[in-house]
Amino acid sequence: MDHQEEKVKLFGMWASPYVLKVKWALSIKGVEYEYLEEDLRNKSDDLLEHNPVHKKVPVLLYHGKPVAESDVIVEFVDEAWSHRGGRILPGDPYERAMARFWVRFVHDKLSPPIWKWFTTAPGEDQEAARGASVEQLQVLEELLAVGGKEFFAGESVGLVDLSLGAMAYVVPMYEEIVGVRLVTEERFPSLSAWMGRFLGSPPVKDHPPPVERLIPRYRAMREAFLKMG
Amino acid sequence: MDHQEEKVKLFGMWASPYVLKVKWALSIKGVEYEYLEEDLRNKSDDLLEHNPVHKKVPVLLYHGKPVAESDVIVEFVDEAWSHRGGRILPGDPYERAMARFWVRFVHDKLSPPIWKWFTTAPGEDQEAARGASVEQLQVLEELLAVGGKEFFAGESVGLVDLSLGAMAYVVPMYEEIVGVRLVTEERFPSLSAWMGRFLGSPPVKDHPPPVERLIPRYRAMREAFLKMG
Repeated sequence: MDHQEEKVKLFGMWASPYVLKVKWALSIKGVEYEYLEEDLRNKSDDLLEHNPVHKKVPVLLYHGKPVAESDVIVEFVDEAWSHRGGRILPGDPYERAMARFWVRFVHDKLSPPIWKWFTTAPGEDQEAARGASVEQLQVLEELLAVGGKEFFAGESVGLVDLSLGAMAYVVPMYEEIVGVRLVTEERFPSLSAWMGRFLGSPPVKDHPPPVERLIPRYRAMREAFLKMG
Repeated sequence: MDHQEEKVKLFGMWASPYVLKVKWALSIKGVEYEYLEEDLRNKSDDLLEHNPVHKKVPVLLYHGKPVAESDVIVEFVDEAWSHRGGRILPGDPYERAMARFWVRFVHDKLSPPIWKWFTTAPGEDQEAARGASVEQLQVLEELLAVGGKEFFAGESVGLVDLSLGAMAYVVPMYEEIVGVRLVTEERFPSLSAWMGRFLGSPPVKDHPPPVERLIPRYRAMREAFLKMG
């Protein structure tokens, strides 16, 4: 096999939480790769060729073959490098199913109301989105409290932590921009403690979220949504 | 271990395509189970206890432990009974990632416009939903044509076929109720042929979709949506 083909490449964009999630997964497994920054207003031919369905980052190129969709990439990374680095998914089939269940919960139930809350002006709609967010956050709070572990499925960062990971830095950023707290230590003690532990974990320290650069970007995004009404 | 605990139970509802998908997966693996029909207007305490997050069917009970979310259950069934019956996911990590990619495509990109098309009155909005549906169906048409296999990942029903499976009987039903064709043999030759093969495959013959009973139910659903405007 050509050495060039063996190389792993990651097509990403600095501000994408989905790309960061993949970087964290690759860090857990200790995989080396070439990182290619995309300009999403002028996507490269390579990106369009490798992800014609979604035309989005992240895309992982493995032996020249593309994998898209961050949750799919994370599971792939765990399986393709199953014998090295940390374990992202548990080994037990039931525990694996639970991890996948919570990944879908974050995607389908938690992220939409938090995004709605962030992109809505103060008022009835924002309050409703806040209520819906708090209700789903409460589910995770109980899950962590009952589990009694450092992370969602054990003592190191795994699949659910990675899926929820953006929340650890995105929610505080949203709170700063909106000027209202969503995840307080009083109401969400386990979740708040998890956020701190996650931000201090090895993969995240390896690729820290670029919060200072992200704040003006998200501020502009919120303003654009408010203008659209 | 108590014999009672070893038993597999499935909480379902006769009209749910998600429940049918799980029945097909259990059939592929040759797993015996007790089926419990739920009345969704009067959910059992067992269902609410086993799926407090979504309060929905299907729920699979395995050694007394619940698994919810049909796509999660299907992967669990494949892993929990990895050494019996057919293979639902391929063995190769890259092929597994591709299967998971297409499952998410069906969930995120294909199902929403088809449902929108079905629940919208004739006019501009329905035409837009039809256009969006056709665009995504075209992606699957090409995937099947290029793959050149009986099913999406080989010569027997696998993960992608199961996820897309409802389409094989739901789309013809929608077409009959709306009075317009969506998936014609001329435009979608590979997909049309797949629909026929899927409906004739062993798991589907084992648990055929109750089309005659479903038609009045879906007709009433469409009428309710049209009334709401």
